[in-house]
Amino acid sequence: MERIKPHTLSGFMELLPAQQMQFERIAEIIRSSYALYGFTPLDTPLLEASDVLLAKGGGETEKQIYRFTKGDADLSLRFDLTVPLAKYVALHYNELSFPFRRYQIGKVYRGERAQRGRFREFYQADIDVIGDGKLDILSEAEIPAIIYDTFTRLGVRRFQIRVNNRKLLSGFYAMNGMSERAGEIMRTVDKLDKIGAEAVRQSLINDVKMLPCKAENVMDFMAVKGTNDEVIAALERYRGMDATFDEGLDELKCVVGNLAAFGVPEENFAVDLTIARGLDYYTGTVYETTLLDHPEIGSVCSGGRYDDLAGYYTDKALPGVGISIGLTRLFYVLQEQGMLSDALVTAPADVLILPMTDDLGFAVRTATALRDAGVRAQLYTEQKKFKARMSYADRLGFPFVILLGEDELAAGRVSLKNMASGEQVLVTPAEAVERVRAALAAANAAKVIKE
Amino acid sequence: MERIKPHTLSGFMELLPAQQMQFERIAEIIRSSYALYGFTPLDTPLLEASDVLLAKGGGETEKQIYRFTKGDADLSLRFDLTVPLAKYVALHYNELSFPFRRYQIGKVYRGERAQRGRFREFYQADIDVIGDGKLDILSEAEIPAIIYDTFTRLGVRRFQIRVNNRKLLSGFYAMNGMSERAGEIMRTVDKLDKIGAEAVRQSLINDVKMLPCKAENVMDFMAVKGTNDEVIAALERYRGMDATFDEGLDELKCVVGNLAAFGVPEENFAVDLTIARGLDYYTGTVYETTLLDHPEIGSVCSGGRYDDLAGYYTDKALPGVGISIGLTRLFYVLQEQGMLSDALVTAPADVLILPMTDDLGFAVRTATALRDAGVRAQLYTEQKKFKARMSYADRLGFPFVILLGEDELAAGRVSLKNMASGEQVLVTPAEAVERVRAALAAANAAKVIKE
Repeated sequence: MERIKPHTLSGFMELLPAQQMQFERIAEIIRSSYALYGFTPLDTPLLEASDVLLAKGGGETEKQIYRFTKGDADLSLRFDLTVPLAKYVALHYNELSFPFRRYQIGKVYRGERAQRGRFREFYQADIDVIGDGKLDILSEAEIPAIIYDTFTRLGVRRFQIRVNNRKLLSGFYAMNGMSERAGEIMRTVDKLDKIGAEAVRQSLINDVKMLPCKAENVMDFMAVKGTNDEVIAALERYRGMDATFDEGLDELKCVVGNLAAFGVPEENFAVDLTIARGLDYYTGTVYETTLLDHPEIGSVCSGGRYDDLAGYYTDKALPGVGISIGLTRLFYVLQEQGMLSDALVTAPADVLILPMTDDLGFAVRTATALRDAGVRAQLYTEQKKFKARMSYADRLGFPFVILLGEDELAAGRVSLKNMASGEQVLVTPAEAVERVRAALAAANAAKVIKE
Repeated sequence: MERIKPHTLSGFMELLPAQQMQFERIAEIIRSSYALYGFTPLDTPLLEASDVLLAKGGGETEKQIYRFTKGDADLSLRFDLTVPLAKYVALHYNELSFPFRRYQIGKVYRGERAQRGRFREFYQADIDVIGDGKLDILSEAEIPAIIYDTFTRLGVRRFQIRVNNRKLLSGFYAMNGMSERAGEIMRTVDKLDKIGAEAVRQSLINDVKMLPCKAENVMDFMAVKGTNDEVIAALERYRGMDATFDEGLDELKCVVGNLAAFGVPEENFAVDLTIARGLDYYTGTVYETTLLDHPEIGSVCSGGRYDDLAGYYTDKALPGVGISIGLTRLFYVLQEQGMLSDALVTAPADVLILPMTDDLGFAVRTATALRDAGVRAQLYTEQKKFKARMSYADRLGFPFVILLGEDELAAGRVSLKNMASGEQVLVTPAEAVERVRAALAAANAAKVIKE
């Protein structure tokens, strides 16, 4: 037979089983965290008609899109989960109740230049709250709580949710007569972390052609830092000069003022006026989340408030707020940084049952008792020597092995071996279930991410 | 703004939120059932290089494949989960331990002619056990137990797992000198359910050009029915005439003989000699699963034993056994037949919390207490009238609403309203958590599928 060399496309993550288990665990924690906050699951097609998917114009993304024809259909693979959401809400508007809160965890496609750590197929894990006509600021205030809770459940402690409000920026640029150059200025300011304050100042003067005093104003504004109270106090000094600014400041105060109520510790939160994000999309609060020990990764969870989700599909005003976790990229980075806990079980099952007699009845009954208690149990049915069986259990990292020979069968008991400690006990199947459950509960209390 | 009419591609399932919840529940039951039997999750790319995906030749499927180029890459969307598994095992052979047991629940793509109930994007939910060089027959014997357990967990009782062994068929055709026409004969016999025995007999004589006595032999063989013991006894009469047949009979006896040990009731199982399936792929036990009250649906879970998973990628012998549930099609049919239970919660959350004071602290603490107990709680933060809020709760089907006004705040209690009974009680947050948990446990004990 002619053979084809098997390979996986470059930029497409394909994990080995143990890694996949870790990935699934992270995805499941994010999923259940989203669900606990009252977001409903959504699953839209990966393929959409190109005219629908590109209605807004893909912008920079457009040339990265996987677009093709089949028959006379012009199709594209989705490049994010927001456009499909916009389509969904516009299409099903009459069947939905608002505020509509959904989560979606799914793959998206971007034909980026292949490079290490960049993926062409990757998961996004999104939530959005969509209002019908309007959406109260409190939805924006709740988002930091969801981010905080989700990352805490994952086991991350040293992270910071950074928040800004686009109205503060728009208002500030307006009061300084810089509105027309706001985009250019924000793109320059966005380089602060990379090139430093002095280089940004020079760039504002030389490239954006700002007067030095105006550039100074921008630099002063962006340098506003400190505790939440200090930042708010500094911003209050600009009040009264621009209505949009004042509105942004009131919104920011509402978000900050509700942090304690929402249970977000101040050390996990900061107002950061340099955050702008999607310049033509977000209109209110914007969010970024950084791992304090790994600022080089950039934001691991971002989003913001927008006024117009689906204007290119419908005349309904659909404001919303949403965040997205780049799950594939996050997983890749955690793995690279050695931040995935190895305390958690990555074996295909919690217990490997080795029947060593012809009668499988007792082995199956034991497996059933384990499964009824929620314990994953695998029956090993290959005719292999004992050593080969134990080596299989070792390699895959089963936490427990149950041995069932003639003696065990006769006694109606099982030999339960704890693979980590080596301890082996002869117990009833019910006792085995309890021991395994207790041990797993302790092991699985560990967080999936370690710092 | 120029508007594009939003639409979803024909043949692509997109569900409303309540239906999506039901779909997720079914998928999760299948997933966790697979996991309980010691299958590890796998997630392979939806896109593969066309030469890899079509290495085997797509056969009838080939013209249905979504294939396109991007840059100089020739790409295809996967049309099943088996070819990607073959690629995965061949590619990662040295890093896997065998038997390798994996489940995968994912979307696959086939550009079929659009018609009602046919999908171009659909989920398959697969398990496979892959051996290295060989795989014991007991893996084939375990499969009916997994099918039985999975469908039982879903709430289906009136189903039958139908089993055959390809070696019985091959052996039977060989002993009758019909091996060369076996494919043609099997395709004709496959129509038994549709056109009836007499039409099949005529077709064997007129179309396949068999002698009437030979056709009679085939019809007699296919007519073997009865209890497992009766079928085995009837098959024993053919023993000794063909080595492959005898081997198949021994395998079938092992599968049938272990049914009781594996806990599969005889009424959910039948040997059916008319089942052939994937003619050029399966080599041993083959499985189909039918809903007794809906035979018109065809098989809802099928698969079988194969000797050569990945011969087009590797010279390693990789025998295996696997089954697949066509999840999207199954869901569509269940919905059409009104078989989805409406007893289960389809709201975005279990409790909708309506704070009616400015201070959100107590509302958030109540929500946190609920979430810590695994109860999904949504905070309603829109400035709407009481009636509009309750109408939102009604429309989405929240089982519970918690009302928090000044009185509740002052008393440190919550008003918990059971939306089904209308009963409203003033209790502590801890009591509310317990009441909600108990009610949900009772409600969620209902099966997702009703008959």
